Amino acid sequence: MTDLVIGVDIGGTKTKLGLVDSKGECFEKTTFRTREYPDLEDFLDKIKDTADKMVKGFGRPVNLLGCGVGAPNASSKMGTIENASNLLWKGSVPLVKKLGERMDMPIQVMNDANAAALGEMLFGGAKGMTDFMVLTLGTGFGAGIVANGQLIDGFDGFAGELGHVDMTMGDGRLTGLGVRGGLEAYVSATGLKRTVTQLQSKYMMESRFRDIPYNNLHGEDITRAAEEGDPIALKAFDYTAKIMAQAMANFTAFTQPEAFILMGGLVNSGKWILDPLKQYFESFLLEVYRGKVKILLSTTEEKTAAISGAAAQIWVKDNKILA
Amino acid sequence: MTDLVIGVDIGGTKTKLGLVDSKGECFEKTTFRTREYPDLEDFLDKIKDTADKMVKGFGRPVNLLGCGVGAPNASSKMGTIENASNLLWKGSVPLVKKLGERMDMPIQVMNDANAAALGEMLFGGAKGMTDFMVLTLGTGFGAGIVANGQLIDGFDGFAGELGHVDMTMGDGRLTGLGVRGGLEAYVSATGLKRTVTQLQSKYMMESRFRDIPYNNLHGEDITRAAEEGDPIALKAFDYTAKIMAQAMANFTAFTQPEAFILMGGLVNSGKWILDPLKQYFESFLLEVYRGKVKILLSTTEEKTAAISGAAAQIWVKDNKILA
Repeated sequence: MTDLVIGVDIGGTKTKLGLVDSKGECFEKTTFRTREYPDLEDFLDKIKDTADKMVKGFGRPVNLLGCGVGAPNASSKMGTIENASNLLWKGSVPLVKKLGERMDMPIQVMNDANAAALGEMLFGGAKGMTDFMVLTLGTGFGAGIVANGQLIDGFDGFAGELGHVDMTMGDGRLTGLGVRGGLEAYVSATGLKRTVTQLQSKYMMESRFRDIPYNNLHGEDITRAAEEGDPIALKAFDYTAKIMAQAMANFTAFTQPEAFILMGGLVNSGKWILDPLKQYFESFLLEVYRGKVKILLSTTEEKTAAISGAAAQIWVKDNKILA
Repeated sequence: MTDLVIGVDIGGTKTKLGLVDSKGECFEKTTFRTREYPDLEDFLDKIKDTADKMVKGFGRPVNLLGCGVGAPNASSKMGTIENASNLLWKGSVPLVKKLGERMDMPIQVMNDANAAALGEMLFGGAKGMTDFMVLTLGTGFGAGIVANGQLIDGFDGFAGELGHVDMTMGDGRLTGLGVRGGLEAYVSATGLKRTVTQLQSKYMMESRFRDIPYNNLHGEDITRAAEEGDPIALKAFDYTAKIMAQAMANFTAFTQPEAFILMGGLVNSGKWILDPLKQYFESFLLEVYRGKVKILLSTTEEKTAAISGAAAQIWVKDNKILA
């Protein structure tokens, strides 16, 4: 019998499932489109069916230890998803309870960025670290915080919503949740697009972006433009890196992490974002922190990291791997 | 035999000592001026002598469990005070080691705001809470963060330097440590004075402050002026409360505390700071946090809270009181 955990990552676009072993390796990875299941009951049936098929597909006898789910706006303490803006099921979704009616095993749910942090701690680059933060820089900005060797959950499970801290004393861009000056309006794949657009109005210099409408703008285009020396692209990366560095210097004053581990679309821009980020970051740090905080890229396999992270909730016991 | 702990609070102006029991009650409180001992060795001798006298003065036989010290810029993990800007001893001060050469008992040192948080958890208004933050609003801005029932120390003991988070994307007042736009340049007794001064330049309205130089300005004067309806004083409290509320909304997105516990000089201004603070705070919170985060005033006795908090380091064992 092989001990395995079902890992489920519920995203606005795709839901990913896999069977995860004690090393974080992911088997039988399956994906379906979340929005094809606007009825929650149908969605949960689909999870159950997919899990059954994965176990059959594995080929060898499986001992299922449980099912760990990562989702936006999830509360580990309540076992729910609450008012997720990019999911179709509104209000409070009692995920653990409803999934438990279908699957006879321990079930846990957690904010997706928190699950990513747990995954890094158990299976990835944060092994052995007691104080670190994972930042997920995709469509939005997510954060998972580990301090004293434990994931920080918060009073009722909503800690780490760092995309919505105001960096501007109420005088900046709005986030999707209506926070004025909120971090993710600047530091995310979407934030970078907004900056490229803003800079076209601020400056008169030539740029390839002047022929591309906002809705056709993709992160890869901005990276390619930077490689070609496009001045708007270069300025946009510098601006984004500077705000990100300031935010990370602020976060350091909070829990003093040993490292930040970065993942998500914005990180794929490589040196264009990372080089200025590292420079600004050291210069913004309080002296007592300088030279002590690492900036690392996630080494967990990108395609399965979210699934392994979700499964980590079940694999972890007293902050150690069960096996 | 009475079990007691020596509590020591080292401040820029005064050093306070007392004997603290398992309920946080403080006996034999003694105070001396820190700056009378520019030589560290003399200072430590004075601590040792004072402690001996307190034990004699207590009258009954004492079983000393240890000595807990709170100090600015202290690292619990290193047992040192590092480059404290308002103390005379420069560089890295190996306090635990040097005090240990004089006193044969367990000795621990901790950042003063962290010690205050520990004191609130063991002896004060945070009893039974697992997620809360203490904010000390005096000359500077200090913070002690408790999450998952544990004090957040940071990678090498310097977590919680929240007076130096930038609220302005690098476009604001400088803190004493040179952080542009740093929180304590706005939200502290000193910050309030700076705001009163700024507002006199911004507006032309009559104000009693136009006859008082900056160096003669005290928090009590600003409170009294607000009571008399002075428009600059009222605007200054509103401005300070608004930035403080924004900062606290940001902090909530970090660890999602159940409560903020406030102490220090600025809090003595009462409703003038607290009423606008509470209003702004709720309006700035992300929806998922609204109505869930309490703002409380410290109930520990102000004169001995710092001593009891310092002693709490020795009294706590596995996050519970030893006794």
